[in-house]
Amino acid sequence: MRTFIAGIDGYIGWVLAMHLANEGHEVGGADMYLRREWVKEVGSWSATPIRPMEERLGAFEEVFGQKIDFYEGDLRDPDFVYKCLEDFQPEAIVHLGEQPSAPYSMIDLEHTTFTQLNNLQGTMNILHAIREVCPDAHLVKLGTMGEYGTPNVPIPEGFFEVEYRGRKDTLPFPRQPGSWYHLSKVHDSHNIALACKIWGIRSTDLMQGVVYGTWTNETQADERLVTRFDFDAVFGTVVNRFCVQADIGYPLTVYGKGGQTRGYINLRDSVRCMELAIENPPKRGEYRVFNQFTETFSVREVAENVKEAAERIGVEVHIEHLDNPRVELEEHFYEADHRRLLDLGLEPHSMVDALEGMLKDLMAYKDREEAKEDVIEPKVRWNEAPERVSD
Amino acid sequence: MRTFIAGIDGYIGWVLAMHLANEGHEVGGADMYLRREWVKEVGSWSATPIRPMEERLGAFEEVFGQKIDFYEGDLRDPDFVYKCLEDFQPEAIVHLGEQPSAPYSMIDLEHTTFTQLNNLQGTMNILHAIREVCPDAHLVKLGTMGEYGTPNVPIPEGFFEVEYRGRKDTLPFPRQPGSWYHLSKVHDSHNIALACKIWGIRSTDLMQGVVYGTWTNETQADERLVTRFDFDAVFGTVVNRFCVQADIGYPLTVYGKGGQTRGYINLRDSVRCMELAIENPPKRGEYRVFNQFTETFSVREVAENVKEAAERIGVEVHIEHLDNPRVELEEHFYEADHRRLLDLGLEPHSMVDALEGMLKDLMAYKDREEAKEDVIEPKVRWNEAPERVSD
Repeated sequence: MRTFIAGIDGYIGWVLAMHLANEGHEVGGADMYLRREWVKEVGSWSATPIRPMEERLGAFEEVFGQKIDFYEGDLRDPDFVYKCLEDFQPEAIVHLGEQPSAPYSMIDLEHTTFTQLNNLQGTMNILHAIREVCPDAHLVKLGTMGEYGTPNVPIPEGFFEVEYRGRKDTLPFPRQPGSWYHLSKVHDSHNIALACKIWGIRSTDLMQGVVYGTWTNETQADERLVTRFDFDAVFGTVVNRFCVQADIGYPLTVYGKGGQTRGYINLRDSVRCMELAIENPPKRGEYRVFNQFTETFSVREVAENVKEAAERIGVEVHIEHLDNPRVELEEHFYEADHRRLLDLGLEPHSMVDALEGMLKDLMAYKDREEAKEDVIEPKVRWNEAPERVSD
Repeated sequence: MRTFIAGIDGYIGWVLAMHLANEGHEVGGADMYLRREWVKEVGSWSATPIRPMEERLGAFEEVFGQKIDFYEGDLRDPDFVYKCLEDFQPEAIVHLGEQPSAPYSMIDLEHTTFTQLNNLQGTMNILHAIREVCPDAHLVKLGTMGEYGTPNVPIPEGFFEVEYRGRKDTLPFPRQPGSWYHLSKVHDSHNIALACKIWGIRSTDLMQGVVYGTWTNETQADERLVTRFDFDAVFGTVVNRFCVQADIGYPLTVYGKGGQTRGYINLRDSVRCMELAIENPPKRGEYRVFNQFTETFSVREVAENVKEAAERIGVEVHIEHLDNPRVELEEHFYEADHRRLLDLGLEPHSMVDALEGMLKDLMAYKDREEAKEDVIEPKVRWNEAPERVSD
């Protein structure tokens, strides 16, 4: 299987590339290191010492004997995207190459527009390029469970059968996300569904929960293969951020009441899910949606889980409730299907089992840089206008 | 009432501006004549002899004694949008300033991307500018009934109450549009709904049916006040296009079986609907949706209506079924609510009553330019890849 990964330098992209290469895929991928720049822009860095791409690729070949093809360029540039697909001729394309942070998209107009245009244009280029260059290829697109929001009914996997005024139909489940970033993923989902319908493209749209974890089998083999790990208030997702906070003795910052319930998934399971999607492609013209998470917790429960794991290894942890910077329900109904990846063979890891290892892994990097505290405090607020600098 | 119209040079924008000014609104508006350029780009022109903006504004002031403030600039430029709102201080903003053609968006990647980015960015700039400059202003946004597609259940006005697995919620009605243009409107709708939720903006999102008509009271007063009228296969919507086809002796080109059923609305009613929306604003933070059409017809029925009207004035008309360039159901269930504007006082005109007058109006411009036939034949196909010119 020839698999191309857009966004191969990212948290998931890098470990997915190594995993698939070791599972026998021919792997290629593209990146232009924007994630590294955005994190720098907000004053932060990866808690893990990630290497430049060239060093990563060399180390991977040295350790595992597998070569990964790398293309440096911008997914917003159609010529670059066409060139990648023409050259690599993929059978599957995993698209992870988007701006992935909700707070980043909420900073101001410039960041909102950048996020939506960047994400939309990259996906649109990929769709058109698949149509013209490799129409049989399977697009595996990373979306987010956040696309659905928190409706008062159970969340199906993409579509639901409704009876309305005496008639029946199977309809896309309505999307009610809570940030400009999440909306960019909703726009992508709608665009991909149309491309499947009118052009016969095949696609799996993965509604992923919050991903956490420090390692996969490949990263364990050599420190040069480590994947990035964000812990700041803008790019660090909640479990990862809490683990760093516990390690450095900073209270776990629960936003508001902490009843916000979400789906979660281990990094190793995320990689496995994508492998399962690739190896079980949909039919031509099919647009299918998998909800990609394995457990649900409230933020309060996540904080408790981290606190307990930390205490088991002798680290004392406090939990603090902050004024919520987001606009979201803090107590709500939440029930979401996630059968389809299990049916394909996913064997999930549990968060509680993983946390101790994560805390220990991160401890090794505890003193790598100073002032982690400074970037943990949330500064972007959903409903306060930013300072506007006039030209 | 201070009302600002984004896209004031367009088919609806121009007549809306004149109508509101005559109803006592202080009217301002922005445009940069992109519609005139796009129509030229596809080799076509307005069937009516539209004047440059300066001449329009002068003639309107001369005839009706009302001044309209005009701002020339690009809605994609945030500084321009902020400047307009800071200067004009609107209480209502009607946003009509988008690329409005489905076939145009389907030409190739460049046109797809232009349509989605242009429409998304303009709306995003307006939302952010309202938030910061005039947070109490009411955004009246032109969407399209095409956002909903053709589901097998009745279409409500924006939201529906569902019972699903024993629980109830009121959810946004799912969107399943059929072109990149229609999707741009769906993206806008999602973005506007979030802005209302997190920033307390008030908005009315108008899901408009296919609009038709040659005149309003204001355009009748002086030929210099005429509004544009597109008849080509890219920018001409079906009723308007059929009227020109009837007048020049070109068969009415029904795409496929012609069972495609849609909502329709007269240009005068469209203008009145927007006036009703403006004069009955929603509460702060409310995002409401009105379905803005008055009658439903299949394309076959529209062709029959035009044929009969033409025959009443002695013009013989043939109906021809073309291979459908679009990907859409040609026979389907269609039932859509449209109560809310009637409840506010809309008194609809009927298509059948309007067609004879339209045919006669257009007859006056029949020989204005040659080769109308050349631009009527549909050339953009939904599922054929365009020729790709490599650089």
